[in-house]
Amino acid sequence: MKVAIIGLGLIGGSMAIALKELGIASYIFGVDHNPVHINEALELGLADECVNVDEAVAKSELIIIATPINAAESILPIILNQVDKQIVFDVGSTKKVICESILVHPKRGRFVATHPMWGTENSGPSAAVKGAFLNKATVICNKNESDADALEMVERIYSLLNMHLLYMDAADHDMHVAYISHISHITSFALANTVLEKEKEEDAIFELASGGFESTVRLAKSNPSMWVPIFMQNRENVLDVLNEHITQLRKFKTCLEKENYQYLQELIENANGIRRILKN
Amino acid sequence: MKVAIIGLGLIGGSMAIALKELGIASYIFGVDHNPVHINEALELGLADECVNVDEAVAKSELIIIATPINAAESILPIILNQVDKQIVFDVGSTKKVICESILVHPKRGRFVATHPMWGTENSGPSAAVKGAFLNKATVICNKNESDADALEMVERIYSLLNMHLLYMDAADHDMHVAYISHISHITSFALANTVLEKEKEEDAIFELASGGFESTVRLAKSNPSMWVPIFMQNRENVLDVLNEHITQLRKFKTCLEKENYQYLQELIENANGIRRILKN
Repeated sequence: MKVAIIGLGLIGGSMAIALKELGIASYIFGVDHNPVHINEALELGLADECVNVDEAVAKSELIIIATPINAAESILPIILNQVDKQIVFDVGSTKKVICESILVHPKRGRFVATHPMWGTENSGPSAAVKGAFLNKATVICNKNESDADALEMVERIYSLLNMHLLYMDAADHDMHVAYISHISHITSFALANTVLEKEKEEDAIFELASGGFESTVRLAKSNPSMWVPIFMQNRENVLDVLNEHITQLRKFKTCLEKENYQYLQELIENANGIRRILKN
Repeated sequence: MKVAIIGLGLIGGSMAIALKELGIASYIFGVDHNPVHINEALELGLADECVNVDEAVAKSELIIIATPINAAESILPIILNQVDKQIVFDVGSTKKVICESILVHPKRGRFVATHPMWGTENSGPSAAVKGAFLNKATVICNKNESDADALEMVERIYSLLNMHLLYMDAADHDMHVAYISHISHITSFALANTVLEKEKEEDAIFELASGGFESTVRLAKSNPSMWVPIFMQNRENVLDVLNEHITQLRKFKTCLEKENYQYLQELIENANGIRRILKN
């Protein structure tokens, strides 16, 4: 099958590797607005050819939108204007705005809204990795708005990638990802800024930083051009969770200020409950 | 050399594995107040024999204190009362209080204050792992208060473990670890409590939680009997960093409330600076 991948970064590039490896994509048309990324993607073999959006859509049976979410929402109606029987899916981190934006489009049925739950703090074609999606979850949103054949094809592709499928309403999806992804990023950004602000002896951090610190601030390396649009779109859910997170941190602060170590013990015991719902 | 390990948990147990493997310890006397841990440690081969503190000290050339830090401070003067030429070192996460507590002890010189910068969120003998300390840093505090032969022996042991040595004043150490370790744990505990409080659909977290979430909340599994004493002892430094962290989080909150996405972009770009000082 001929596949167009719009956005040759971490997700688009990793998708290209997987689709080629599994024999799903016989030929990949890459699209990217960044000439440096185009060169990198061609060198890395993530695309067979780089073309513009119109040509990619015209020549492909499957179109994958893997740009930052604000670009995805701009480009999706333009792509749908051009599709006939082709199938389009996106891989963005929020789903409500994109689903609403094309709700009454005559070609709405050709689009499937998806969110594969995988990522790293790195970006660009060179961040793409083999085996990225294996055994991870993919959320498909508002599936009843997609044509049956389009939905089936996208389900089949994700199954071939060895991902397990979850189905959600787009608004529910956005609320859940605020808890399990977006707030982790804000926490990590804020923690990095805390350390950079307070700890002037950077050599000391470098020497002392152990696994615990690295895992907590790893996400702070993430790209703002991906994350600002996510926080914009999921603003209300993220604010809701962020307010609760600040409230929880203030409980720790109060324990320390008042030297209430019994309550501190209880807060930590409660946090240990996260073991119940983590896999590892 | 005959070695006593007081506290057969994550660190004490991992130290036992390393010292045996490297041929540093010919025989290990284990000490633990928890009978379950004693049985586990003997089954796992972390100690050749479990005895009480007095016997362990009398029969060993090297005594390692690997209990939670509050227990370490209670037991250290008792151990120093009994040592002659033996060498004692601890592996606790704070160093100022323990160094002050034995400053005028006649056997102060036999003690070396250390902090190997390695740990996981797991605890107990079964959490002990092989190769734990390899290529990590160890901090040695207030080295001038230790006898030359004791310091040399401890330096040699850590070098044989393939760790690199850093030297710090105990108060400086405690300030640095507040930034690079203790605040990460508070953030992680508070994030776990946020999610547990707000996200009632635990199945959704379980299904959706991807690598980013897991790495940010991993530390929230950590044991309160280890961490409450650390936060008690390093209270002032931790409060200082925690206040800054809440301030930083409130900046993100304000950006979202006021929809100031330019400033949000700047905050994230600043956080990206953490790349400079992380190894990976």
